[in-house]
Amino acid sequence: MAFDRLPARRAGIDTYQQPVVYLRSDCPVCRAEGFEAQAQVEVVAGHRHVLAILNHVTSDWLRSDEIALSEAAWSLLGVAEGEAVAVRHPPQLDSLAHLRTKVHGGKLGYEALRALMEDVSHGRVSDIHLASFVTVCAGGGLDFDETVALTKAMVDVGERIDWGTSPVMDKHCIGGLPGNRTTLLVVPIVAACGITMPKTSSRAITSAAGTADAMETLAPVALDVPAMRRVVEREGGCIVWGGTTRISPADDLLIRVERPLSLDSEGLLVASILSKKAAVGSQRVLIDLPVGPQTKVRSAQAAGRLSRSLVSVGAALGLQVRTVLTDGSQPVGRGIGPALEAIDVMAVLERMPDAPADLRERALELAGLVLEMAGRAVTGSGRTMARQILDEGRALAKFISICEAQGGLRIPPSAAHVHVVAAPATGVVQAIDTRLLSRAAKLAGAPRDPAAGATLHVRHRDRVELGQPLYTLHAESPGALRYALDFTRSQLPVAPVKAGP
Amino acid sequence: MAFDRLPARRAGIDTYQQPVVYLRSDCPVCRAEGFEAQAQVEVVAGHRHVLAILNHVTSDWLRSDEIALSEAAWSLLGVAEGEAVAVRHPPQLDSLAHLRTKVHGGKLGYEALRALMEDVSHGRVSDIHLASFVTVCAGGGLDFDETVALTKAMVDVGERIDWGTSPVMDKHCIGGLPGNRTTLLVVPIVAACGITMPKTSSRAITSAAGTADAMETLAPVALDVPAMRRVVEREGGCIVWGGTTRISPADDLLIRVERPLSLDSEGLLVASILSKKAAVGSQRVLIDLPVGPQTKVRSAQAAGRLSRSLVSVGAALGLQVRTVLTDGSQPVGRGIGPALEAIDVMAVLERMPDAPADLRERALELAGLVLEMAGRAVTGSGRTMARQILDEGRALAKFISICEAQGGLRIPPSAAHVHVVAAPATGVVQAIDTRLLSRAAKLAGAPRDPAAGATLHVRHRDRVELGQPLYTLHAESPGALRYALDFTRSQLPVAPVKAGP
Repeated sequence: MAFDRLPARRAGIDTYQQPVVYLRSDCPVCRAEGFEAQAQVEVVAGHRHVLAILNHVTSDWLRSDEIALSEAAWSLLGVAEGEAVAVRHPPQLDSLAHLRTKVHGGKLGYEALRALMEDVSHGRVSDIHLASFVTVCAGGGLDFDETVALTKAMVDVGERIDWGTSPVMDKHCIGGLPGNRTTLLVVPIVAACGITMPKTSSRAITSAAGTADAMETLAPVALDVPAMRRVVEREGGCIVWGGTTRISPADDLLIRVERPLSLDSEGLLVASILSKKAAVGSQRVLIDLPVGPQTKVRSAQAAGRLSRSLVSVGAALGLQVRTVLTDGSQPVGRGIGPALEAIDVMAVLERMPDAPADLRERALELAGLVLEMAGRAVTGSGRTMARQILDEGRALAKFISICEAQGGLRIPPSAAHVHVVAAPATGVVQAIDTRLLSRAAKLAGAPRDPAAGATLHVRHRDRVELGQPLYTLHAESPGALRYALDFTRSQLPVAPVKAGP
Repeated sequence: MAFDRLPARRAGIDTYQQPVVYLRSDCPVCRAEGFEAQAQVEVVAGHRHVLAILNHVTSDWLRSDEIALSEAAWSLLGVAEGEAVAVRHPPQLDSLAHLRTKVHGGKLGYEALRALMEDVSHGRVSDIHLASFVTVCAGGGLDFDETVALTKAMVDVGERIDWGTSPVMDKHCIGGLPGNRTTLLVVPIVAACGITMPKTSSRAITSAAGTADAMETLAPVALDVPAMRRVVEREGGCIVWGGTTRISPADDLLIRVERPLSLDSEGLLVASILSKKAAVGSQRVLIDLPVGPQTKVRSAQAAGRLSRSLVSVGAALGLQVRTVLTDGSQPVGRGIGPALEAIDVMAVLERMPDAPADLRERALELAGLVLEMAGRAVTGSGRTMARQILDEGRALAKFISICEAQGGLRIPPSAAHVHVVAAPATGVVQAIDTRLLSRAAKLAGAPRDPAAGATLHVRHRDRVELGQPLYTLHAESPGALRYALDFTRSQLPVAPVKAGP
């Protein structure tokens, strides 16, 4: 049937990760196959195939004997302009029967979850089916056995790194706290002791900066696995962006739907974290759980439940997991935004007198625990060892070596436009609205503009004088600065001051 | 802020009911607001606003100072070419908190479901949130009280018709059986007795023809409520397409997601059916439940459970509901496709000797029950009364009058190209594969080409001679005919014949 083969055109439309193809509604293949707009179709070129959503074109920019592809479809299919592409009804997905089983109250084992994650990781499962899966996993929708099976399945459908050594250490923070860039301090402290700590980090998803964004203002982070291996063999540690690898690929696609649904699922969260750790070859993992009114985990009780699940599911996967609850009531350090957070980190590494003490203390606590988990320090002495390494300049030296090995140390950029917001009265800072401040940093351009963001000059309960700086907004254009300012003026104060003597 | 106002362009891209807007990724509003591809945005023109998915354009067909709209966005917003349009972050939907409550195991009352259906009916709820809602409603996810509350909420967010008379009769078939066009016979029989029966029907969603598609080959069906009221005042009955009204509008949007998820939810099914009936002002409703291996309801047990739910939820809404289980093992009548089904109906109305007996018998049974429910016939005598009305030609006369009132009786079209599939051997027909036959009818062009489809010349267990016609395919083009034929040849036989003496 030759009528269903059409020359491909690049539409130049970015539909994010959702592949879309464009066909004239009067084209022969639409009429013959009865393809409706928004139908799911399989697009085939040579041995490659991709599931896409069909959009009908009614105007003249496309002829009825050609097919246009969105950016995601174009790159997944890897076609050249004019190459013949076939369009057909998508194959029935057997794994969706497992989804229906779960929706109707059944339990899923490894084989079923593996089949489902296989289809998810290859982009064969539509967003509405992903939403259905996330919904049935919400709250305690996955029991212990299912969480273990899902985690294994997520690991097994992707690549897996083996470092050929032991122990391989890792740390992770269950996000939500701006400025909490302890990774950039823990890795060099631990690696300076000769312990292996290959760290993959993410870019910002909803925040003003991810660890990879902050690190990128200091060194290249988009390293593939062989390059990452060379850095780790030389320096013992690295801090790279995890997005270049196919590590637990199903997770990224689930997150795309989890985020707008904003449904918390303990099982999905545990599987998401631990599958990435297992796949990158980590063996012992310290997990930082900031607890506060605006973080992901909002009570000690919830943190305790999540901790137990992380430890027990980790054990079932052969991962030694330890958790630590930390204060999540206000941002850590001063900067919010890639470069501003990197500057805080460098101040701590360089032992500057005005380096943020809270960032230093948190990093020392976590690094100490990692040293204890690695068997390098006896229980209770890890923090002291970490402080020595930092204070002797060995962490700074190791960090510089890691940056050089990743492609060269850089100086973080600074913003062209700043505006200082001053205290409206003499008094005491009543609170720091972490979420508002983070939003202002994003409106100022972070993380897209790496120098953009905010710096906080006061902490909760500080005494301030009238006119004393509370925080500064940084932007790379006057428009972005104005936009962030307009936003903060339209809201409740980021750092309300209660007037007093 | 003027930078977020852009002149609108019609993109000429049909994304079905999902509004999409196209912006250059480098346009000021994307940069300032941080809009990512696939983000949900609110698009505003004057007092109208619509939620849309954002696609980034990277090629030259759009300038960075303009915005293009998909067909759905264009018509919902009602703008003119070049008119200024604003784009902004969508408002937080409070009703999504109710969805989360339900996902986490809570029960929803009328107010919560009303708020949710209000947002659904205005297109403010994304497909992934709809998928989440459908998932939590799957199986027995809605209890009796929730089903009643949901049905009321679905009625209350749309228009409602009051006929100012009593009783107002209705019938409904829980689909899945090709050719089951009893509505076109029941309405004229009942209306010929002077009983009010204003029938709204749907077009095909996944089948080769809906009742409205078949009726449309005989008379106009796209009547608005005032036109429908004029027909009913004159003739007592009508058979129109329900899609021109805002009757239970949330239902249509839920169905868009229910279909690909293929999750059965008794509560959603009951709410969908009864909300439409209550909203069109029906008071007493007969519901036909064909039970068979390929219909929606597959066992007498499932039919019994669904019946009890329909009757009890109906009672809570003030609707008198009666259900009748019918044979769903093979198609009804001979034709499959809009015109071919209409031809069967006309043969019964005209009392032709070769009129399909099964269609006639089913229609008389249902019409008899409606006459009994209306209090016009005593229990057990409805069928006899219905037969008299049909055999005296009063049903035909009433049907013609209804067609004239709706805009004029038409003669159904016939297809330009037909192909007869003959028995490969002498023997007995083992089965009729309803689903395959229906698919062949669709590939031949039904329902888009109203004359296209299939006619079945044999029934299950018929004896046939070698070469005797089994079924005929009808198409309006040689290509469509060939396509349907290729399909049937690639599959198991539609009507397998077991050879015998």
